[in-house]
Amino acid sequence: MKEFDLIIIGSGPGGYIAAQRAGQLGKEVLLIEKGELGGVCTNEGCIPTKSLLNSAKLYKNALESESKGLSVKEASYNLPQAMEAKNETINTLRSGIEFLMRSAKVTVVKGFATCVDSHTVQVDEQLYKAPYIILATGSSPILPPIEGIELDHVLTSSEILSLETLPETLTIIGGGVIGLEFASYFSTVGVNVTLIEMEKEIAPMMDHEIAPLLRRTMKKVNFHLGSTVTKIDQKQVYFTNAKKEESTIASEMVLVSVGRKANTAGLEQLSLTQDGAFIHVNEHLQTSIPHIYAIGDINGKSLLAHSASRMADVVISNLFGKVKQQMRYEAIPWAIYTLSEASGCGLTENQALALGRSVKTASIQMRSNGRFLAELGKREVGLCKVVVDEHTGALLGVHLIGPYSSEIIFGAATMIEAELRVEDIKEIVFPHPSVSEVIKDALFALDPHL
Amino acid sequence: MKEFDLIIIGSGPGGYIAAQRAGQLGKEVLLIEKGELGGVCTNEGCIPTKSLLNSAKLYKNALESESKGLSVKEASYNLPQAMEAKNETINTLRSGIEFLMRSAKVTVVKGFATCVDSHTVQVDEQLYKAPYIILATGSSPILPPIEGIELDHVLTSSEILSLETLPETLTIIGGGVIGLEFASYFSTVGVNVTLIEMEKEIAPMMDHEIAPLLRRTMKKVNFHLGSTVTKIDQKQVYFTNAKKEESTIASEMVLVSVGRKANTAGLEQLSLTQDGAFIHVNEHLQTSIPHIYAIGDINGKSLLAHSASRMADVVISNLFGKVKQQMRYEAIPWAIYTLSEASGCGLTENQALALGRSVKTASIQMRSNGRFLAELGKREVGLCKVVVDEHTGALLGVHLIGPYSSEIIFGAATMIEAELRVEDIKEIVFPHPSVSEVIKDALFALDPHL
Repeated sequence: MKEFDLIIIGSGPGGYIAAQRAGQLGKEVLLIEKGELGGVCTNEGCIPTKSLLNSAKLYKNALESESKGLSVKEASYNLPQAMEAKNETINTLRSGIEFLMRSAKVTVVKGFATCVDSHTVQVDEQLYKAPYIILATGSSPILPPIEGIELDHVLTSSEILSLETLPETLTIIGGGVIGLEFASYFSTVGVNVTLIEMEKEIAPMMDHEIAPLLRRTMKKVNFHLGSTVTKIDQKQVYFTNAKKEESTIASEMVLVSVGRKANTAGLEQLSLTQDGAFIHVNEHLQTSIPHIYAIGDINGKSLLAHSASRMADVVISNLFGKVKQQMRYEAIPWAIYTLSEASGCGLTENQALALGRSVKTASIQMRSNGRFLAELGKREVGLCKVVVDEHTGALLGVHLIGPYSSEIIFGAATMIEAELRVEDIKEIVFPHPSVSEVIKDALFALDPHL
Repeated sequence: MKEFDLIIIGSGPGGYIAAQRAGQLGKEVLLIEKGELGGVCTNEGCIPTKSLLNSAKLYKNALESESKGLSVKEASYNLPQAMEAKNETINTLRSGIEFLMRSAKVTVVKGFATCVDSHTVQVDEQLYKAPYIILATGSSPILPPIEGIELDHVLTSSEILSLETLPETLTIIGGGVIGLEFASYFSTVGVNVTLIEMEKEIAPMMDHEIAPLLRRTMKKVNFHLGSTVTKIDQKQVYFTNAKKEESTIASEMVLVSVGRKANTAGLEQLSLTQDGAFIHVNEHLQTSIPHIYAIGDINGKSLLAHSASRMADVVISNLFGKVKQQMRYEAIPWAIYTLSEASGCGLTENQALALGRSVKTASIQMRSNGRFLAELGKREVGLCKVVVDEHTGALLGVHLIGPYSSEIIFGAATMIEAELRVEDIKEIVFPHPSVSEVIKDALFALDPHL
């Protein structure tokens, strides 16, 4: 039996951040990982998709920039080279996490963790004990019960990241962030992509003005909304379309991205209360056993890498820090790295209305923005929408589609978290020319008064 | 004699914003412009340089992305096409400003304005009168008294934007923002560039850790620091180098970018108090004649387009708005759109020390950042430096070099303007993976406690 101050199961952006913070505070920390350090985010999620999407963007720009002064005789996309660059990025980041764990004096054990009781975790034959346990085991893709789902050419987001050759045709089932990013990637590098989504619109977290614009930017993707896949065989995907008609689409490869479920294997002995398929937590991220915490995808509250990291901070602060914190979800930004990017933070107009809030909104086209025009021209899609509390003037939401959206949105998170009002933000100076200016311009469009 | 509520001279980002705001408040506004709407920023500054730098970036990426999966047989840079795209951008933005002026019911008069007395302005034979006048006439490049400065191949930033063919060799005199952006542009598209700077380092507004890094990213530019140009002839530039040795450099073309001076022609009758070559203003941007305001470059306080726009807001708010405002300079961001970009906001470490502030600083390499690694790899230059008040923990400065710096810095301006402390910012959620995360990571590097 080895004893620690804290045991963390899972080394994704929840687990490794929790381990680093606790280690830096001088605690004896055990971090258990069954695979590679970094979790889904580093190894088969955020990072590899960004590497591939960036390579696709470079390819797209090489093909489509003649009007801007770039003449290219022949450009081609080299998938093995792009995969090698992606793998190098993953390896560098894994080494970085290893380095952080060593620096913070975290003990890392590789292997599958089984919770023996509420203070004891077993890996192989060894038992480990701690007063606190953090479950950060993440999530896995859901495979819906569709005939043919088990076929070899039906892949999840994890497997499709190791392709050696591009298929001619790819059908993606599910139009959330993961499905859309892969649709953008594969359609840009020359694959014939069809995306089938059960709901009437893609990307449920997006404002209703932004989602159709995002579809419009993905000109090469064949979207079937309100459609349900009924069967997959070696050559085709069968689905019922929005008009209730049976239809098929030829598919050399199929990607399933309909949702994710919590990884709870090894936790059975704890008999934790669940919220559906996820582990129930309170606002301090405690499970039904108060000294056991669940952070990141496993609790189902916000399936985003940075939400997991923030949950890590909240838990470590409550356990070992000076300030007691609650997990808040009001100002968590999201970003989708499609070409073009989109992002958002805070309430959409419809979410605000559903909460009974009185809001004012303004939407402005990015083609009035100097940098957008200078880099993309007046025919490209770009929009910024702001949602403001009608009574207090507080900024409640910012929603973007257009270049740099993913790098701009933290500033909106800052404004919402700091509870700034429109009149406060109007006094902030934004650099010119930058796409970020659209936030200020949207607020002036909402109310031209100084 | 025609009468208005407000006369504005100059339609750059100071003048046209002032006109728009006042017009939207229902005031009768006259905007006088001797050239094209938009001023230096739109016509020969911020906007055209960003268009050209973007075309250079596309060219660079096409040449240098083989390791990321892009194979290009032959790429060339088409200057006439890039210039056409640049001109189209300028025309679109000019039309945009015209549209804004019409929407705000601003009267626009084209011609040279002469102030006849403190309430009366003459354009051609027509006199205009108003209780308030805003001077927003901007600035022009300084031509230092160097032998040969009048030669035809010696250009300013205004003229070099209309080149029809690229020179083989270009010498740039002056290593401020303008000189550096042109050095980055021309060296990227294949011109042999030498930059001669009188001071020991480029870019005086930059933190002392960032400036040498920026030089390092500009590998193709031949820098001569601490050097003084003594003479220019048809073939060469003569200069005294840092070791006091006489030297020459072959130069088919020369760009002079040593600084700018206020445009005061037509204002002579007002006999306004000056600060050196600029018009003196107080914190409300009033000149020595209180009902005459001077905003933007003409007052020399902060020669940035967005500073001019902010000054416009302050003046219009004070004249016609609900809230009385002062102009503050503590949280004005700057950005330089070199490849790679850099930006900053607030105090540098040395500025803070010169003010007698006790500060803590932390600098982190961007190669620990997931998106940076995924897009640029571990060998590229990137840094984030934060400056924090040792006693209060307030964020005083953020300094960046690396991709997206120009789009991230408004968020730092927001934090500084809102007087957020390190502990506040640690609770803000940044999207992962984004380069913007470096700000949070730098603050955790400064102080790992939660």
